[in-house]
Amino acid sequence: MDRNLRFATQVKFSPENIQEFSEKLNTLSPIELVDLIESKPPEEKNLIFKALSQNLEVQTFEYLPFRTQKEILNILPSEEIAYLLNSISPDDRTTLLQELPNGLVTHLLKYLSPEERALTIKLLGYPENSVGRLMTPDYLSIKMDWTVKQVLDFVREKGKDSETINVIYAIDDKGVLIDDFRIRQFLIAPLDAQVKDLADYHFLALHVDDNEEKAINVFRKYGRVALPVVNEKNVLLGIVTFDDILAVAVKEDTEDIQKIGGTEALDGPYMEIPFLSLMRKRVGWLIVLFLGEMLTASAMGYFEDEIAKAVVLALFLPLIISSGGNAGSQASTLIIRALALGEITVKDWWRIMHREIYSGIFLGLSLGVIGFFRVSVWSLFTNIYGIHWPLIAVTIFLGLTGVVLWGSLSGSMMPLILKRLGFDPAVSSAPFVATLVDVTGLIIYFSIAKIVLKGTLL
Amino acid sequence: MDRNLRFATQVKFSPENIQEFSEKLNTLSPIELVDLIESKPPEEKNLIFKALSQNLEVQTFEYLPFRTQKEILNILPSEEIAYLLNSISPDDRTTLLQELPNGLVTHLLKYLSPEERALTIKLLGYPENSVGRLMTPDYLSIKMDWTVKQVLDFVREKGKDSETINVIYAIDDKGVLIDDFRIRQFLIAPLDAQVKDLADYHFLALHVDDNEEKAINVFRKYGRVALPVVNEKNVLLGIVTFDDILAVAVKEDTEDIQKIGGTEALDGPYMEIPFLSLMRKRVGWLIVLFLGEMLTASAMGYFEDEIAKAVVLALFLPLIISSGGNAGSQASTLIIRALALGEITVKDWWRIMHREIYSGIFLGLSLGVIGFFRVSVWSLFTNIYGIHWPLIAVTIFLGLTGVVLWGSLSGSMMPLILKRLGFDPAVSSAPFVATLVDVTGLIIYFSIAKIVLKGTLL
Repeated sequence: MDRNLRFATQVKFSPENIQEFSEKLNTLSPIELVDLIESKPPEEKNLIFKALSQNLEVQTFEYLPFRTQKEILNILPSEEIAYLLNSISPDDRTTLLQELPNGLVTHLLKYLSPEERALTIKLLGYPENSVGRLMTPDYLSIKMDWTVKQVLDFVREKGKDSETINVIYAIDDKGVLIDDFRIRQFLIAPLDAQVKDLADYHFLALHVDDNEEKAINVFRKYGRVALPVVNEKNVLLGIVTFDDILAVAVKEDTEDIQKIGGTEALDGPYMEIPFLSLMRKRVGWLIVLFLGEMLTASAMGYFEDEIAKAVVLALFLPLIISSGGNAGSQASTLIIRALALGEITVKDWWRIMHREIYSGIFLGLSLGVIGFFRVSVWSLFTNIYGIHWPLIAVTIFLGLTGVVLWGSLSGSMMPLILKRLGFDPAVSSAPFVATLVDVTGLIIYFSIAKIVLKGTLL
Repeated sequence: MDRNLRFATQVKFSPENIQEFSEKLNTLSPIELVDLIESKPPEEKNLIFKALSQNLEVQTFEYLPFRTQKEILNILPSEEIAYLLNSISPDDRTTLLQELPNGLVTHLLKYLSPEERALTIKLLGYPENSVGRLMTPDYLSIKMDWTVKQVLDFVREKGKDSETINVIYAIDDKGVLIDDFRIRQFLIAPLDAQVKDLADYHFLALHVDDNEEKAINVFRKYGRVALPVVNEKNVLLGIVTFDDILAVAVKEDTEDIQKIGGTEALDGPYMEIPFLSLMRKRVGWLIVLFLGEMLTASAMGYFEDEIAKAVVLALFLPLIISSGGNAGSQASTLIIRALALGEITVKDWWRIMHREIYSGIFLGLSLGVIGFFRVSVWSLFTNIYGIHWPLIAVTIFLGLTGVVLWGSLSGSMMPLILKRLGFDPAVSSAPFVATLVDVTGLIIYFSIAKIVLKGTLL
């Protein structure tokens, strides 16, 4: 097997030679094929894919990353697209379709069989990022009065079409979920026992309108392979499997991380996203932050006289406002993550504010003391801060304490306010909070200076 | 059932009343018990836990978050600790022990049976964050010459002790892994078929020394329930199951996000971590950044004459250096995440640098043009920038372009350099990069100003 893979990695496939190598390619596993296809340029990707048997084609397609799936859909003849879309599992199909532009989706839906089309439209009808979009209707459901033998025969017969047979669900005549079973319970039970003998009537289920974040946290907490999805009447609609949840968890975290860094979510690997898309995702926020930061120039213009009289104040300005920005970045990032993990909710704002006031005072005093000594020690050996250095030291101390306290407080409250207003809290990125604190921190610092230095330097 | 849960949520348990409620508590499911225990103060947590039957105790313990597990271990009598530790699954036990201080681990190891102790020490012997620490030896292995009936009988007999029976592994007489099977393959195959008839000799395995990040990416890519773990000789040592991987994935992402925000990883929920621990995790980096940022005061001291002559230069300083910091935060965050997802490696540095030079020029010119117009438009209506405003506009334009380019470049290279030196790339947080760019950006800006404004303002 290894020999064929090594060979396939080295050969350069072309329309002329692909037929003769087709047999060797078909001995590879879907996993080997995915790695092989991904290592090749687009033309060769398509050639390899078309040389596969239909069965292998479907299996390989499901493992391919989205952008390659899209490339391949663009070049396949219609009948192959139809076969492929009808064969992949409904949740993978929904994920694929929801990533495509709307026009293309309508086009692709035409290739589905009436039943598959109805199913896909139904899944696409649930709100984006909802559990409904992630679920598959391929599960096994049984009745409470069946025997273990009946269940096992049923699994043998129907198991091939089911997304997972690790978990089996008992429903009543109206489709209401009554209990969940692991397949192992039936394997180790006597064949003539009844399903109800094994029941404990405890189960965990997701609601079809739950959002992805909630689903991730439930899976993480309870470590399940799959979870049933129900509607308001507890009717079983489908299941969500852990593999889709793991993919969604990583995707959501990537989006959060990118937003915290001050860009829009990239929606693709860094090296593969086209340059202009990358710029579009980055320049927007940079400009917004730039316009916000322009207020610093205006605010400083307001203190221009003070700066002219005491240039020494300007020397410490970046130090003080960036310390406030750093404290704010820390606080906002901690709160964004705790919100995403469900550790805190907006309702906890009062306790969080309490905590961040104490944190801000502690952190502000720590930096304030260091700043005070920086000015004092330098002044003992040089004359750079003039005869009024003790007053400057006090200004730096109070400025740092105030700005860091303000940074912690506004950094922690910003994600909560955004969430409360229905926005994504991750938008209160480190650069966003830093900019906010730059403008306000500058005003705090110069106001303190005006008070402390009045009658001496100012 | 709900009635008992509702009741238990409302009652305040005390040493006096716990016995009489014990029966009702024992009707609850482990999941309900976890939620109940978590909602109560520590004293009650312990009371509830001790009132459970041993079987329920073990199941509930496995679902409890680490800090509650630790609380409970602290109050249980020795024989209960022994029972508990011997009963929970080996991978959960290893995870628990590796979170505890070393002295306590040695203490707890005493409670394990000789076999369980040998096993745990072996698992603890693998490097931290390695697949070896995550694996469990509770899997089912079969031989190629068995029949399907033999396999199913074996599953019925041994399945109870196994972490997962979704996947079953075929090994040879030396323990070398030959193939993996899903339980469904046996359920839908004729009973007299042989294992080798179902084999395809394709399998995916992790190496025992692989790190967690690699394991996460393999699970994410191939959507498996469990993966086998082998050593250099392909001997099957254990399996890793998806539930542990999901937990590790979320933990790693939390650590990365917190580091990107400029704190150390919290290792616990924001609201529950003690105040002083929270401060310790935050003040360290704030001080490091503060000391770094002090260089801005020194660098500005060097340009004090220029500032005194043209205070207008100081007005734009925060705007320019923070724009460089923002561009740097974007670049470093994108690179940190792409590294974690395995999309790029340190070897790609040349291509990344190339991409970020173009990005930096594009983003720098975009902001530079806006800055240029800001000064120009203001100057048409006011006189705040004096008669030399065109030169100031040019200084702002060149300064922004240069500093943003420098920010993008250093922000993208920093994570790669840290990774190359063996550090965690996430340490090059948004605040870290912003501080670095503040100091260097200031020098770039004033140097440009000195050249452009020489003979006029300076």
